[in-house]
Amino acid sequence: MLDPQRIHEAREAIAPYLAPSPLLYSEPLSRLCKRPVWLKLESLHLTGSFKVRPAFFGLLRNLAICRQRGVLTSSSGNFAQAVAYAAQRLDVSACIVMREDTSPFKLARTQQWGAEIVFCAPHHQARWETTHRLQEERGVPLLHPYDTAETIAANGTIALELLEQLDQDFDIWVPVSGGGLIGGISLALEAHGGSCRVYGVQPAVNASMARSLEAGYPLTVEHFTTRADALVAAMPGTLGFAITKRNAAVVSLVEEEALDLGVSFLAQEHKLIAEHGGAIAISALLQSSPMPTSRPLVIVVSGGNIAPTTLAKILQEIP
Amino acid sequence: MLDPQRIHEAREAIAPYLAPSPLLYSEPLSRLCKRPVWLKLESLHLTGSFKVRPAFFGLLRNLAICRQRGVLTSSSGNFAQAVAYAAQRLDVSACIVMREDTSPFKLARTQQWGAEIVFCAPHHQARWETTHRLQEERGVPLLHPYDTAETIAANGTIALELLEQLDQDFDIWVPVSGGGLIGGISLALEAHGGSCRVYGVQPAVNASMARSLEAGYPLTVEHFTTRADALVAAMPGTLGFAITKRNAAVVSLVEEEALDLGVSFLAQEHKLIAEHGGAIAISALLQSSPMPTSRPLVIVVSGGNIAPTTLAKILQEIP
Repeated sequence: MLDPQRIHEAREAIAPYLAPSPLLYSEPLSRLCKRPVWLKLESLHLTGSFKVRPAFFGLLRNLAICRQRGVLTSSSGNFAQAVAYAAQRLDVSACIVMREDTSPFKLARTQQWGAEIVFCAPHHQARWETTHRLQEERGVPLLHPYDTAETIAANGTIALELLEQLDQDFDIWVPVSGGGLIGGISLALEAHGGSCRVYGVQPAVNASMARSLEAGYPLTVEHFTTRADALVAAMPGTLGFAITKRNAAVVSLVEEEALDLGVSFLAQEHKLIAEHGGAIAISALLQSSPMPTSRPLVIVVSGGNIAPTTLAKILQEIP
Repeated sequence: MLDPQRIHEAREAIAPYLAPSPLLYSEPLSRLCKRPVWLKLESLHLTGSFKVRPAFFGLLRNLAICRQRGVLTSSSGNFAQAVAYAAQRLDVSACIVMREDTSPFKLARTQQWGAEIVFCAPHHQARWETTHRLQEERGVPLLHPYDTAETIAANGTIALELLEQLDQDFDIWVPVSGGGLIGGISLALEAHGGSCRVYGVQPAVNASMARSLEAGYPLTVEHFTTRADALVAAMPGTLGFAITKRNAAVVSLVEEEALDLGVSFLAQEHKLIAEHGGAIAISALLQSSPMPTSRPLVIVVSGGNIAPTTLAKILQEIP
């Protein structure tokens, strides 16, 4: 099992490269939910998502070999940008496998950091076949976007920051895809030993973690498309699933039409740009019933890489 | 002359209502300018601008009489929202004079906080005639949007936060309209006694402070319209002008077409929504030449109240 001490190592390793992300009090959400609600703004990192944490830690853990051979990864877009950026900063050459239906916006943002892009067919299996083939052909170390100890430990640093920023126990709502983010946060809070509770949120069309938790083992969801293009892992990773299952986390689901709500709310009320996957916990919260309590609720705003034209469309619908 | 001690009083008074705004390191701007650049995110306050600082302090300084008689102000939009919100929170009824050409977006956001709106003709003189007439008729205390000791002291709290957040001397670029913001920041830094330098930025079409500094006394600019609809004071306030003149601040000017640059940059690179006036110092910076130095540069992002349709138009032009 993954040693929570790794999370402290990750924090120390990435500290010279990444400042803690801001925690913003949301008065409108607090009023709505009848409890203090805080936003953990992972969207404000350079490259626009929490993925810079595992990108830096993954590279720093194997820096000598990465500098010699380069690094390989596969990503729906946010990890791609993060690895491309961290690799450039650490003087490593990066190769990234991306689905050919990746948004041109995320693609351009990745290329801007000088990474080599290899395209694959637009489904889960093709992505991993291409990635593993390249890994074998080139003998290059692979940075997994969500299912390794390094990735999960690096994601757990978010929880360490929160424990200091809030200085009291809290509930936290986390966007879920492959389970790396909820896994890291759960592991850190479990090790902290307090009464913090972790909840996941997924697009209803890709309820991979929710269904896997019901089944008791990792299941694959077939054939879906979602506006939350950062939450497309069709099956939870082994490690993330195990930690999430052990912590008996509840995962709630958001329908496609409701995914715009969170994006629109953050733009209007907080002047923040978030992508559908990044704002999914806000979308869920806006549809939930208030639970009056003084216990703080933290919403992880995990990413802001929405295509400008998509955001423009949502803004035009604001009265 | 205004006693800088007032700024510390203001900070203590507003502390229970407003958290310090986040200070975000901008790696892309630092790279571009060859010096560390930081963004002071006043846009992240509730109501989307720094104006909540003077709104709260103005009301708190006269709370008993404001609760009895209400409060009156005039605003191009941001101070209106801030006073409406602070008044609601402090149980005061607010009446706000707004030009009839105020953006419907800022108007709706003000009405949402329950303030009474009185419209006036769309020019500087009408605004103040209407305001002073109402003040006389109703015997209600007036909160001036930029030219009182309270307003300037409250704006100065931004500089106190920065001195703690950065812990070293810095240069700072500040959007300028009536001179209340640059006045408050200059006063605080002057009292601090270090080597911090303050620079102003105005829309070229309303170079009221720049021209007044040249002339040596406050001048009025006639007939202009600007995308930076928060920067429309056609003449600097007496107090703000005096402090700015004493500190020999330089004011640079941004042409209308270039005002979109800052808005677009903050959206793309930092996932932040800013209005034209709020991002004007970024627009100026993007057009300036790099000045390699290790001395930090702070950019005040003063507000985020851009109409959604205007932002949508700018986003659609991003490649």
